[in-house]
Formats: sequence, structure tokens, C-alpha cells
Amino acid sequence: MSFNNQFQNGIVILGAGNVATHLSIALKNAGLEIKCVYSKTIEAAKKLALKVDSHYANDIEHIPVEADLYIIAVKDEIIEEIVKHIKLKYGIIIHTAGSISIDVFKERFENYGVFYPLQTFSKNREIDFSVVPICLEASNKILENKLFDLAKRLSRNVSIVDSDKRKKLHLAAVFACNFTNHMYSVATEILKDTDLSFEFLKPLIDETAQKAIDSDPGLAQTGPAVRNDQNVIQEHLEMLKDYPEFEKIYKFVSESIYKLNKKKN
Amino acid sequence: MSFNNQFQNGIVILGAGNVATHLSIALKNAGLEIKCVYSKTIEAAKKLALKVDSHYANDIEHIPVEADLYIIAVKDEIIEEIVKHIKLKYGIIIHTAGSISIDVFKERFENYGVFYPLQTFSKNREIDFSVVPICLEASNKILENKLFDLAKRLSRNVSIVDSDKRKKLHLAAVFACNFTNHMYSVATEILKDTDLSFEFLKPLIDETAQKAIDSDPGLAQTGPAVRNDQNVIQEHLEMLKDYPEFEKIYKFVSESIYKLNKKKN
Repeated sequence: MSFNNQFQNGIVILGAGNVATHLSIALKNAGLEIKCVYSKTIEAAKKLALKVDSHYANDIEHIPVEADLYIIAVKDEIIEEIVKHIKLKYGIIIHTAGSISIDVFKERFENYGVFYPLQTFSKNREIDFSVVPICLEASNKILENKLFDLAKRLSRNVSIVDSDKRKKLHLAAVFACNFTNHMYSVATEILKDTDLSFEFLKPLIDETAQKAIDSDPGLAQTGPAVRNDQNVIQEHLEMLKDYPEFEKIYKFVSESIYKLNKKKN
Repeated sequence: MSFNNQFQNGIVILGAGNVATHLSIALKNAGLEIKCVYSKTIEAAKKLALKVDSHYANDIEHIPVEADLYIIAVKDEIIEEIVKHIKLKYGIIIHTAGSISIDVFKERFENYGVFYPLQTFSKNREIDFSVVPICLEASNKILENKLFDLAKRLSRNVSIVDSDKRKKLHLAAVFACNFTNHMYSVATEILKDTDLSFEFLKPLIDETAQKAIDSDPGLAQTGPAVRNDQNVIQEHLEMLKDYPEFEKIYKFVSESIYKLNKKKN
């Protein structure tokens, strides 16, 4: 049986946000048929449906019941609600969330799984899906193989990762992506007091990331915290006194840098 | 007068660490003569001196007094000591530190300045100096022009930045580089509990940095904190209970993400 025949009755995408958008486009580009895009917001459903030549729905009752694959790519807190109300005849149902256990499906379904693309998606940025790590989990081995074949059509980087490990990976990703991005944001806020542009920091941000990618982070820590240079640290804390949140972050991150480095050396 | 003639009596580099190494090499590549490398550690002085065809010294008394330019590129806490003891006849003296005021020179010298390359340097990584922002400050206008010409030989990105602004830039850089790198390190530590490799996070780290470089950070914040998704946040804090420092960072960074985003929207 050829690959496409496995999903000849098409795919339903639940959600029209960043992950749903990028994943739908990647699936379509890989030759899969998106049968329907569902979103509570009809405009969002329509917009994504247009991009992937699909029908769309904003009422869960109007989702076709005979598709082969249902992909839930919505905010974590809405997944349970969708799982409770969706109707399907024989299809596979999966979600794309880092933090939600595969067990969310077990009461209502037999063939279910998780398809977690570990990347930060923005609607207006293109993503090279072929290098995005995809972490899979499935309710049985046959389905695992099926999802693996599907994922391999999108990415060279596919792994089987169970729910506990996936949650740790998601937690690590929160530090590596969301918290890192916040460090950039704080830097921007600090520069607002001056006429210096964020442009100044771009070569530094790029090199810091490339250094971690090329070797291992933490080994190459620099700056006042790792040297425990209290003159600079105290002056920085004083400069942050009008930003109590940033001051706290500065203090605790500096302490943590120093302690982690001491533990390593 | 040609550019090289301005520094025909050569340059003395004080320090043999990351900044001293990259800066010396960039200066030599730009056609300048490094006359002497000074470091308290004779091996370090010798090693760098070999790279830039220079003499070396580990006793401050042995540094030539008739060079045209003295560049102090040592740890912040040693700058004052060097400023106190160095002897020079007519040369210019500058330091490369983000956090040290230009005033450190004013009691002993007339022609002094700051030459701050805003980048994270590691000895074993090549740096494209032509894109490194160089922030200059000088004790007088003639010297400012001289340093500007010199800096322009190394980088396309040269600005005049006074000590107050430079200190804010350095503080912003601590967040954008050192703290960001620590977020990567924490992610590595979290993955140590699993058999998952840090490789998983590399496409994410790259994309997070490129997103900030291509647009503005903070606008594009994603993840549980910005949504104030307490289910995920509480589960993550629970997962971090064996790492009290990381737990504190998670809590305060999450709060700060939420507050900063609310302020913006």
C-alpha cells in the first residue's frame, strides 16, 4: 500500500494558529490532503483553509467524521474539550502539544498519538520543516509506524519520545526559547532608556546562539556572574532598581550561573 | 598623514584573554603592529605574542614606554591596578570594558579612551570582526577621530557611546548573552534526566535567535507564561522541585513575561 493511500480519506486540522498553520502547509507540501480546517474563529479557519485547499468549519459538529487523521493543534487548555466532543468513525486522532499526556485520548479512542514538532512557529515566518525535530508517541506499534512514516515525509529528524520525556523536553524548550526570548526583551527594555537601538545586540545574540549550537552551552559562560564580579553585579542591580522584575531575574540568574559553574568545575 | 603612521610606534596589548586575543589578531590583520603583549601569566603572553608577531612581557615594568597605543583588555577588576602602575611617554591609553567608566584614566593621563567591542569572544571560535559593534569614547575630539579611524579599519559598525550609555548597553548584553546562555545551560541540565540529547533543542535555539534578529523580540513571545497557562506552569514548577535555583528562575521569568506582555498590549 502506498503512503498516500494510508491517508486517502484526508486529514482534519483542529486549530488555525501557528502550529496548525505551519503543519498543514508542510503536510500539503508533502502531498497529503487537508480535508477540513476547524477553528472556533471562522475567519481563522477560512484563512488557513484557503492556504491548503481545504474545507473549513467553526462548529465541531460540522467536522467530517470519515477522515483518516485528526490533528489537534490548539492551545493546551482546549485540547480536553475537543477530545470530549469530536466525533469520528475510524480515524486516528493525535495532538501536537509538548505538555499534554497521550492519556488525554484513552477513554474515548483506540488509535491515538502525539506528534510534537519542537520548534517556535510564527505565522509570518517560514520554517524549514525538514530540520524540525518531531517527537512521536502512539497507542500501539502499528500506529507508531504509520505516524513515523508520515513524520518522515516532513522532517529528517523524527524520534519516538514518551509523554514523560516529552514533558521534560517541553520544559527544556521553555527555557531555551521562551525564557531566552524574554532575555532579549529585557535587553530591549533596558535600551529604551537610551537612544541606542536593539541593532547593537544582534551580532551578540547570533554569536551566543551559534556558540551553543556548535559546542555545548554552559561550558563557555562569560560575564560578571560566572566570575562572581560583585562590583559589576551590584552596579547592575542598582541600574535595575526601577524594574523590580528584571532586578529579581538578574539576581537569581546570576546566582544560578555562579552555582552551576562551581558545580561543573 | 597616512593611517599607519599614526600608530607607527606600535600597539601594546595588556591582557591575553579572549578579548585581547581576538582584538590583537584583528588589529594585526588590519596592518597594525603589535609591539608587546603583556600578561601576568607568561605562557599566555607568549602564546598570543606568537600569533601576532610581537614581543611579550609578564612584568609591567618591562612594557615599552614609547608605544603609540596601549589597550587594556583584562578582567574589569584588574584595570585600575594596571592604570595605576603602567608607564608611558606619550601614547594613548584605552580599555575595552563595558562596565568601567572612562574616568578610570583621568587622574594619570590626558589622551585616553574606551574601545568596547560588543561581542562574546571565545579563543577557539573565529569572529567576523567586521560586523562587531565597536563603542568608542575619548577624552578629546582629536583622539575620538583617531580611535574612530582605527575602529573603522576593524569594523563597519562603529559608534560613539558615552560611559553611562555603554554601561546600559553592557547590562543589556548581560541579559542577551550571559543570561540567554544560562537558559541554554538550564535546558541541558533538565535533559540530563532523560536520554534525550541537547541536539533536539538546536533548531529551536537557532530559530528563536533568528526571529529576534529579523524582527523585534518580545512581540513574538510564545509559551505557557505569556498565556498565563497555570496548568502547565504549575506542572513545570513541580518538575523543577529538585532544582531550587531553576525553580526560582522559572517562577520569576514567567511572571515577568506575563507582566511585560500585559504592559505592551
